[in-house]
Amino acid sequence: MSGLANFQSRLEHLQSNKLFETVVIAIIVLSALTIGAKTYNLSPGITQALEWLDTGVTLFFVLEISARILSERQLLKFFRSGWNIFDFTIVVASLVPLEDSELVLLARLLRIFRVLRLVSMIPELRLLVNALFKAIPRMGYVVLLMFVIFYIYGAVGSIIFDEINSVLWGDVAISMLTLFRVATFEDWTDVMYETMTVYPLSWIYYLSFIFLTTFVFLNMMVGIVLDVLTREHQKFDLESGEGEAGEVHWIREHAESMERRLDRIEQLLVERNRET
Amino acid sequence: MSGLANFQSRLEHLQSNKLFETVVIAIIVLSALTIGAKTYNLSPGITQALEWLDTGVTLFFVLEISARILSERQLLKFFRSGWNIFDFTIVVASLVPLEDSELVLLARLLRIFRVLRLVSMIPELRLLVNALFKAIPRMGYVVLLMFVIFYIYGAVGSIIFDEINSVLWGDVAISMLTLFRVATFEDWTDVMYETMTVYPLSWIYYLSFIFLTTFVFLNMMVGIVLDVLTREHQKFDLESGEGEAGEVHWIREHAESMERRLDRIEQLLVERNRET
Amino acid sequence: MSGLANFQSRLEHLQSNKLFETVVIAIIVLSALTIGAKTYNLSPGITQALEWLDTGVTLFFVLEISARILSERQLLKFFRSGWNIFDFTIVVASLVPLEDSELVLLARLLRIFRVLRLVSMIPELRLLVNALFKAIPRMGYVVLLMFVIFYIYGAVGSIIFDEINSVLWGDVAISMLTLFRVATFEDWTDVMYETMTVYPLSWIYYLSFIFLTTFVFLNMMVGIVLDVLTREHQKFDLESGEGEAGEVHWIREHAESMERRLDRIEQLLVERNRET
Amino acid sequence: MSGLANFQSRLEHLQSNKLFETVVIAIIVLSALTIGAKTYNLSPGITQALEWLDTGVTLFFVLEISARILSERQLLKFFRSGWNIFDFTIVVASLVPLEDSELVLLARLLRIFRVLRLVSMIPELRLLVNALFKAIPRMGYVVLLMFVIFYIYGAVGSIIFDEINSVLWGDVAISMLTLFRVATFEDWTDVMYETMTVYPLSWIYYLSFIFLTTFVFLNMMVGIVLDVLTREHQKFDLESGEGEAGEVHWIREHAESMERRLDRIEQLLVERNRET
Repeated sequence: MSGLANFQSRLEHLQSNKLFETVVIAIIVLSALTIGAKTYNLSPGITQALEWLDTGVTLFFVLEISARILSERQLLKFFRSGWNIFDFTIVVASLVPLEDSELVLLARLLRIFRVLRLVSMIPELRLLVNALFKAIPRMGYVVLLMFVIFYIYGAVGSIIFDEINSVLWGDVAISMLTLFRVATFEDWTDVMYETMTVYPLSWIYYLSFIFLTTFVFLNMMVGIVLDVLTREHQKFDLESGEGEAGEVHWIREHAESMERRLDRIEQLLVERNRET
Repeated sequence: MSGLANFQSRLEHLQSNKLFETVVIAIIVLSALTIGAKTYNLSPGITQALEWLDTGVTLFFVLEISARILSERQLLKFFRSGWNIFDFTIVVASLVPLEDSELVLLARLLRIFRVLRLVSMIPELRLLVNALFKAIPRMGYVVLLMFVIFYIYGAVGSIIFDEINSVLWGDVAISMLTLFRVATFEDWTDVMYETMTVYPLSWIYYLSFIFLTTFVFLNMMVGIVLDVLTREHQKFDLESGEGEAGEVHWIREHAESMERRLDRIEQLLVERNRET
Repeated sequence: MSGLANFQSRLEHLQSNKLFETVVIAIIVLSALTIGAKTYNLSPGITQALEWLDTGVTLFFVLEISARILSERQLLKFFRSGWNIFDFTIVVASLVPLEDSELVLLARLLRIFRVLRLVSMIPELRLLVNALFKAIPRMGYVVLLMFVIFYIYGAVGSIIFDEINSVLWGDVAISMLTLFRVATFEDWTDVMYETMTVYPLSWIYYLSFIFLTTFVFLNMMVGIVLDVLTREHQKFDLESGEGEAGEVHWIREHAESMERRLDRIEQLLVERNRET
Repeated sequence: MSGLANFQSRLEHLQSNKLFETVVIAIIVLSALTIGAKTYNLSPGITQALEWLDTGVTLFFVLEISARILSERQLLKFFRSGWNIFDFTIVVASLVPLEDSELVLLARLLRIFRVLRLVSMIPELRLLVNALFKAIPRMGYVVLLMFVIFYIYGAVGSIIFDEINSVLWGDVAISMLTLFRVATFEDWTDVMYETMTVYPLSWIYYLSFIFLTTFVFLNMMVGIVLDVLTREHQKFDLESGEGEAGEVHWIREHAESMERRLDRIEQLLVERNRET
């Protein structure tokens, strides 16, 4: 065994170590707390200490990700997993120097996303996020339909109501934001009462919009529940029952052939009895 | 093959062309952006350009729908599909001239609905809308029940609270609008606190209304979920299992007759053995 | 056939008449519109006409319910159905005279409930309401649990926050109303920010309350869905499958005995072959 | 039978007495009403009476819990049930003296929790609470994921928006509270419009946050429904069907061996017929 292979096997061993995992999680939480602490007004001494801590955490993350890349026998294999790319991007993004006065805001913002490494470290959260990603394609078209509804109502609103209140209905984008506000029931009656002074029938516009969006939203929810249910059902069938319905069908067909065979056997016996 | 038939077959070919479909979708999106752009304050030059673009889009849509109608061997067959009538109505409605100063607002509004052609062009959105339409009859009676609740509470409210605030409780229609506001929890406590100064027990009116509508709404949601579940289940049974329960019943009955037959066979053999 | 029996059979015939049903529904809707119209400011002439119409509707309802009672061969049998008692109560309640100046408000309020006869006339609405009633026992204990949570938080709130704002936290009843407002997210941050000026940690009180009530509410919803699902499933089993699982069990047991019998038959045949 | 055992059996008898249970529930409700009554401004006489009543209720609860502990043959066995510990803690906590002026507020607060004994007394509520507790582990990780989202958005918000409004975005904790307000749609547009005056694109921050939290919340709901459904399904399988799928598999395998046996029997009979 060469030195490199020996080193790699040691790194791999370290990866699967439960204690090491706990240390990494602890450091992620510590780094999250550091970020949170900086949002408070602190004495210069503590600010300095937090900066040193931050440098330490950054260094640790660089070392940890390097170890994980090196422990891979083929370097590129590391980047085949989405979660690895996710971790790598976060670590690289947090390397933007804090001292540089121009980039200091960006550097601080990028460092926040280190909290997301909690998701990639804890298997249960990873499962949850994977499940969320699976729901995206199904939701894509519903969001598109929602967008069409918002766009039509937004364009109509910005044409008719622009003269009444150009802050809320100035152009199609602002109108859509106002409609999103109406959809969340946020002071929507204020918006409605204002336009009703000019167009007394404009409540039809708001009520039809609320009914449509609620209706499509409900349908989306039912759609997701059913989608997940069906997928769970199929998985269950594959894992445990292995096609119960199929087995029943097999039994039915073979029972038919067995019956025909029994018929022939009885015939043979009856014939023999008659002969003798 | 006559010239007309040749032309028709070419048009049909064009219809099923994937590239042509993409072009149509792109033009719909472009037309949507044109409508949206007009809601902004633009320089005269751009407004002129947008108007030309709009005329172009209108022309393209008229040509496209004409091609689709002509490609049909029987002209009336085109109007048998609900989606075709939908497309035709949208295209015809957008023919109202923009230049006519009197109809300019109507023309602009009607042109917005061209975005809806996105729904009839993309099969997945068409499926979604079809599913929404199927849910309507089931929801009709629930909406009627809701309306009865709103009407009774609205009439009671406009009789009792009219003197307190005629803006909110002036007549039964205004009262129902106020109650819809209460149902969406939109500043509903302001409405309640006002009437509670005169009738301290009027919170019973509001709370009972909120409980009733939430209860009926929840039931509606559960109803839709169950309705869709049952329909999916039946479709699944028809497609794959083809009545597993029925097959099991068949097996049970035939197993009984097989058992009787085995009984007779054994009897015959035992008798023979005794004879010899 | 006596004269009375003849008359009764004619009334029964009238009951089941589809046209008569439509007339009753039309008159209910007309009576509802009359009630609604009265909430508007109308000229004396129209008011007078509405009053005559109201008397006519009241008379018609009294005749209709009398006919239904008389068509029953045993008078008391009529009152065995909950829906009949419901109809009877509504009709009797609307007999309070409108002219009596003291009772005029009560009479008007009671007349509103005639709209509810729509529910007892339309079979689909009757089904819906029956389904809602079935959900009540299941929800009773959840509402009790909710009430316990509200009572505890209400008592704690009225003890701690009374000094800050006695309008919102004066006694346990007012506090519970304020908490209901918080549960509907109605300007709840205003309530919270006010108490946070004195007790900076009081956000724990509000957030824990919101989490608890949302959690229990969600559980209630899931509970109802599951309850309805299970009941539907059992009904389905009883109607179509008739115990598929039981049949499978029967087949399994009988297959065992058949196998033993086949064993014996083979034995007999082998023995005979050896003998000869 | 010794005196002690005799006494214990009498206590046990008392426990299972339905009347005694009703008395306990009545006293809990009475104690709850006492607590509620104290939040009103009362005359000194009534206050005195309530205090005596409170002492009486406290005494009764001490006696009742003592009886329950003594009725247990082994004293420590009593503390093995979570509900017993729950009851014991509530009773002990309410022993803090009301007269002590320093602890009077704490004593009053602790006495409120006696209402919770309603939950441990009524079996249906106990079942509901047990069901809620079972849902906690499943929800734990979703809450953690939610917390990560809130923390990241909170840190970003407190870095960017601190200068605009330090009351809402002062530090990471305050920002998270503001975000919770946004998630409940409570005057969230006021928060958004304020930051949009400085950063016109900040609506992306709010809309992405609302979409993310709604999406995760929906997923949580679906997750709970599915979790409960699966558990119910497994329970149903264990109770009634006892592995229908397994039985079908058994039948299939044995049908194969029966078919082979029938084959052999027919062979034997055909051979014999040829011989003779």
